[in-house]
Amino acid sequence: MTKLNWGLIGGGEGSQIGPAHRLGAGIDGLFHFAAGALDVDPAKGRAYAQSLGVAEDRAYGDWKEMLAGESKRDDKIDLVTVATPNATHFEITKAFLEGGFHVLCEKPMTMTVEEGEEIYKISKATGKQCAVNFGYSGFSLVRQMKAMIANGDIGKVRLVKAEFAHGFHADAADADNPRVRWRYDPKAAGVSAVLADAGIHALHMACFVTGQDVETISADYASTIASRELEDDAMVNFRMDGGAVGRLWTSAVAIGRMHGLTIQVFGESGGLVWQQEHPNQLYYTPLNGRTQIIERGAGDLYAEASRASRVTIGHSEGMPLAFANIYTDLAEIIRAEKEGRAADPAANLFPRAEDGLRSMASVYAATDSAKGDGRWVNAVPNILK
Amino acid sequence: MTKLNWGLIGGGEGSQIGPAHRLGAGIDGLFHFAAGALDVDPAKGRAYAQSLGVAEDRAYGDWKEMLAGESKRDDKIDLVTVATPNATHFEITKAFLEGGFHVLCEKPMTMTVEEGEEIYKISKATGKQCAVNFGYSGFSLVRQMKAMIANGDIGKVRLVKAEFAHGFHADAADADNPRVRWRYDPKAAGVSAVLADAGIHALHMACFVTGQDVETISADYASTIASRELEDDAMVNFRMDGGAVGRLWTSAVAIGRMHGLTIQVFGESGGLVWQQEHPNQLYYTPLNGRTQIIERGAGDLYAEASRASRVTIGHSEGMPLAFANIYTDLAEIIRAEKEGRAADPAANLFPRAEDGLRSMASVYAATDSAKGDGRWVNAVPNILK
Amino acid sequence: MTKLNWGLIGGGEGSQIGPAHRLGAGIDGLFHFAAGALDVDPAKGRAYAQSLGVAEDRAYGDWKEMLAGESKRDDKIDLVTVATPNATHFEITKAFLEGGFHVLCEKPMTMTVEEGEEIYKISKATGKQCAVNFGYSGFSLVRQMKAMIANGDIGKVRLVKAEFAHGFHADAADADNPRVRWRYDPKAAGVSAVLADAGIHALHMACFVTGQDVETISADYASTIASRELEDDAMVNFRMDGGAVGRLWTSAVAIGRMHGLTIQVFGESGGLVWQQEHPNQLYYTPLNGRTQIIERGAGDLYAEASRASRVTIGHSEGMPLAFANIYTDLAEIIRAEKEGRAADPAANLFPRAEDGLRSMASVYAATDSAKGDGRWVNAVPNILK
Amino acid sequence: MTKLNWGLIGGGEGSQIGPAHRLGAGIDGLFHFAAGALDVDPAKGRAYAQSLGVAEDRAYGDWKEMLAGESKRDDKIDLVTVATPNATHFEITKAFLEGGFHVLCEKPMTMTVEEGEEIYKISKATGKQCAVNFGYSGFSLVRQMKAMIANGDIGKVRLVKAEFAHGFHADAADADNPRVRWRYDPKAAGVSAVLADAGIHALHMACFVTGQDVETISADYASTIASRELEDDAMVNFRMDGGAVGRLWTSAVAIGRMHGLTIQVFGESGGLVWQQEHPNQLYYTPLNGRTQIIERGAGDLYAEASRASRVTIGHSEGMPLAFANIYTDLAEIIRAEKEGRAADPAANLFPRAEDGLRSMASVYAATDSAKGDGRWVNAVPNILK
Repeated sequence: MTKLNWGLIGGGEGSQIGPAHRLGAGIDGLFHFAAGALDVDPAKGRAYAQSLGVAEDRAYGDWKEMLAGESKRDDKIDLVTVATPNATHFEITKAFLEGGFHVLCEKPMTMTVEEGEEIYKISKATGKQCAVNFGYSGFSLVRQMKAMIANGDIGKVRLVKAEFAHGFHADAADADNPRVRWRYDPKAAGVSAVLADAGIHALHMACFVTGQDVETISADYASTIASRELEDDAMVNFRMDGGAVGRLWTSAVAIGRMHGLTIQVFGESGGLVWQQEHPNQLYYTPLNGRTQIIERGAGDLYAEASRASRVTIGHSEGMPLAFANIYTDLAEIIRAEKEGRAADPAANLFPRAEDGLRSMASVYAATDSAKGDGRWVNAVPNILK
Repeated sequence: MTKLNWGLIGGGEGSQIGPAHRLGAGIDGLFHFAAGALDVDPAKGRAYAQSLGVAEDRAYGDWKEMLAGESKRDDKIDLVTVATPNATHFEITKAFLEGGFHVLCEKPMTMTVEEGEEIYKISKATGKQCAVNFGYSGFSLVRQMKAMIANGDIGKVRLVKAEFAHGFHADAADADNPRVRWRYDPKAAGVSAVLADAGIHALHMACFVTGQDVETISADYASTIASRELEDDAMVNFRMDGGAVGRLWTSAVAIGRMHGLTIQVFGESGGLVWQQEHPNQLYYTPLNGRTQIIERGAGDLYAEASRASRVTIGHSEGMPLAFANIYTDLAEIIRAEKEGRAADPAANLFPRAEDGLRSMASVYAATDSAKGDGRWVNAVPNILK
Repeated sequence: MTKLNWGLIGGGEGSQIGPAHRLGAGIDGLFHFAAGALDVDPAKGRAYAQSLGVAEDRAYGDWKEMLAGESKRDDKIDLVTVATPNATHFEITKAFLEGGFHVLCEKPMTMTVEEGEEIYKISKATGKQCAVNFGYSGFSLVRQMKAMIANGDIGKVRLVKAEFAHGFHADAADADNPRVRWRYDPKAAGVSAVLADAGIHALHMACFVTGQDVETISADYASTIASRELEDDAMVNFRMDGGAVGRLWTSAVAIGRMHGLTIQVFGESGGLVWQQEHPNQLYYTPLNGRTQIIERGAGDLYAEASRASRVTIGHSEGMPLAFANIYTDLAEIIRAEKEGRAADPAANLFPRAEDGLRSMASVYAATDSAKGDGRWVNAVPNILK
Repeated sequence: MTKLNWGLIGGGEGSQIGPAHRLGAGIDGLFHFAAGALDVDPAKGRAYAQSLGVAEDRAYGDWKEMLAGESKRDDKIDLVTVATPNATHFEITKAFLEGGFHVLCEKPMTMTVEEGEEIYKISKATGKQCAVNFGYSGFSLVRQMKAMIANGDIGKVRLVKAEFAHGFHADAADADNPRVRWRYDPKAAGVSAVLADAGIHALHMACFVTGQDVETISADYASTIASRELEDDAMVNFRMDGGAVGRLWTSAVAIGRMHGLTIQVFGESGGLVWQQEHPNQLYYTPLNGRTQIIERGAGDLYAEASRASRVTIGHSEGMPLAFANIYTDLAEIIRAEKEGRAADPAANLFPRAEDGLRSMASVYAATDSAKGDGRWVNAVPNILK
């Protein structure tokens, strides 16, 4: 099976996100790392790409050069990953989609709802994949949750409770450290800090597993460290288009919580609980029955979950492989298109431009509510109304 | 050591609350069960009290008879417990306080804020103890939390996150069962269902451990089973008078959650987590440090926690003994008064009329907010402003 | 319902075991603390008993005086608890059984197998109850385990794995502290230290839940602190009369383990796991199925478990109430005898002289094996062969 | 950085072990999959290797052809992985070592102690790396344990308790399924079943983390399913050359246990607990102190642990990346040799021929003991005495 050609923008030497994407793309041997524009410093970016095995003529100085160069090639990249600073995601993603490339964009896809609507429109118009890296949705048992809910295993969903709470920005003495400070500065971070950065993952998960979208939001933001303009703790209540009630807590000052990504879903006939820090167990309780522990790798999982699992039951499987599943899915979709066949439907679960758009619209709605005495605000982007 | 005389109102044959109070009062041998008016049916109440060892002349037909009878005695009861239906707590508690008795009242202390203010005033005026049975505050490690926070071990409190979520009212087919239905009917239950019944405990705990009171509230109520007029799930955001942000989730439809009483407190220099279902461990994380597991019964606990612990480390200790600690505290306070000595300050932690009043004011404020588009509502009773 | 009269020997002021027994006997209001010989110092014992409410003429100076005094009374005690130093259990238990009293003896029942056989014979001959305080067998979910196994829910038992491992004797600097040292000195402690003191509980539990008895044993003892003559860590393999394989680990040097009492049972069609430190959950896995969490207080428990549970599901219940269940059972058995009716069969589960005898025979067999290069040794007392 | 050339023997289409090794070798982009002899059917093996991107002339029909072919090349493979059926490991590993190749051999390295001694001698004589795939030793926090112990953080080790217990061979109805049956047949599996297959990992871990080797063994084997000739459950007691006492339980009939690989180490001044199913937390208790939770990815880990960790704290990391660490280590060692520089000492932790030899000697000693009434047997291979 020929590997697909893959390109990366951003993820230069010393970054965390670069190795994560290379690992994700490389893990199953489905992608060949063919092209890159890895650094804001063109010379450094070219040298680093070559040190990672990219051919000299595809080790580009910047993304525009890469777009031009790849567009001309017969063996052009099949997928490009955009892992640059947040504020640049929009224009790069837009340009590559318009250039006819499939894109995997880091979150947030854009900084504003309007930009999000534009990307959404372009991806629809061009027919190109615009995946967004809500990587936690790649876990096998998160997909099991989604499949169970879709199959009615817990009945109509009444309530979803999501959390993403950590304590890594809790040190007031460290709050002026530039590494931390920009996150709470609206000039650098936009309208929201911890919700846009961390909570957004939990929000996406709530939508992903329930198959419902957010309609209205009431939020409470707090800046528990006084010097911060943006929120470092937020509670978001929401209502979903399938009737579910949503509750989301996110924090950056919850000392002792490492990560805290947890999703609980309660339906008419059952409940489900999953935690990212112990991702190989899913807790399922049927109405009036006992809680059951569903193990990743078990023989009775849904196809969506089995597909997203690599090692046998009882062995732990973690975040990097969940992340890789987004790539595995994309490879299947791209390959099926190339081969003129139907793709495996279980591979069709990766987050897309619509998810990127909706989640940004939710962040804006939450911010409006928090500034507006907690009133309920519509969170549906105009283009999707 | 002579036992104190104890009386019980309510808790008739077949009730759950009666045995719980008898166990709590009896467990340390501090109280003698001397008088009772246990049933709405006077004959049944008299017979049942006698079957439990109460003398014939103190097995009363109703609480008025008991008040009259005990008032005349030299060996009158030292403490009376009010464990009748919620709507009667106010008048009975009022009457006994005014009659010069110490009272332990089941929660809710009253059905309205105004009644709460009256009880509060009477307890101040008479100097009698009016304890309110927020029994979870009796756990040894809850008291350790309180003491740690009071001693500055986690610095100034920024955030408290409280939960009391269960799934025992989640069965729609059971919603019309009278045993369940009255709880969601405003005529029987008042202005709130799950918050007033379950969440109120978590709310009290948030105040108890932080030593702060609720000032303002924004709430979101949901009735996830359509036939219910009152809420079966609620999210309450609040701000406290010491500057802490509060978040409280309560639910009766969280299938798979048994009880779910959990308190997390995050300060400037540390975090704490405690769960009622595993009450013998307290998780403490110092800022930038490792999470530590504090075990009930350990040698380095604060006096408030050591006092409230009966068996050695490693042995589980549960809810009935926590509940009993309220009685143990009251016994010490009452006995010290009788003996004209200062009471052990570590015994002075039981919840009082002020707690009963404030928690009811919070329930009313939350209800107002939930009905008012989530706006922030003042939750401080007028009498305490 | 008239209370039964109860007497206590040992458990003087400052002891741990005294309050535990008083709490256990008193918790359900079934026993009246009528007589006591609480201290080796007769005057202190008499005074302390009176301070606890025992009448002056039943506050005895020693157990012989108490035996003589009670024997003459019409309202003599219905049950006596022997909570004296280990080496005295035999003679006191023997004397009271022969005097026609029901006895609850602290473990170990005797110091030797021969003494155990004698007690066993006397209890058979007199028809008096001789209960032995293996208190962990009183937990509701331990009884659920026993009932499930008896009912075939996990099929024929293949394997039982028991542990009781703590770290409270791990400090070498503390090893010569008299509080610790006597436990590892054969002159004071007998043939075994940690197995006879802690592991014996786990061994009893293995027998209790499986309904099988130990036949043969191979053991490995270690004294990890050099100055100790007796073992502070032991592994015991055994075979049971129903065909089960047994494995038991016990330790006093497992730093970080608080108590570590855990029982796992594996049968032909399922497995069960229970831990004393989190006693309100029982983990059950049917063959080829998912692990289920059985909660104490659930509606579908066996009668043996429901009887031994006092508070509703979701509330924690701990060791003191488990301990109390031994008293509750005894009260039912004694009362039924007095009333000439059949006792509730679910109350018939408390450990008895046969258990005390068998467990001591197992300790001796384990010691023989450990001294004998690990060879397999018969552990059945001659009288039971 | 040029990739190293890597070859694989075994791991044909449909196997589990093949993808695991390709993922491990590929994950960090350090190895190029250059050569393979993947199947007992030469044509199938050649075709499958080519489908995975191996060049036609390096897609070999069998290992002998591969050894001959690679030996002649200038760009010969830098490392060969032997992932064939157990009985063939010896001759293939031997041949490649003698041919001057570095080898990573699946466990068990050999079927007998004598063969193990021969491999050990050859690896010493040739100076070639002979790694053995005890992959669990690659977890970041397992290496933290090792480093902590080596640095004296828990003092002299007194006791190590290891477990590897699962329930996947518990179904008697499935026992004659060929997929299961061969494992309990001495003709196919050798002298031991569950100890040689599963328990051996826990045994290696005990040695790995303590830095001590096994000297003597006393074992108890059980075949809980009657038709089995070899053991499906075993308890192994041992003594180590540094004075530690060892206890190891392994089982294949522990229904409900998924994997159960757990290591506990107790020293003079602390204890450690780690579980493979939740590998991102390590529990450390200092003597007389509180248990601390050490998180993978924390800033204060030892270099050996930090090196073996890829994602930030709070994100789960699982078995496949632990496995990959063996390859990462080998890459560093091989590359350093090529570059004539000292290797990173933290990369020098992978298991070797000596580990393969010692663990097989322990299996034989345990089997002798189990057949010999539990007597203690020396487990040190002659060549290492």
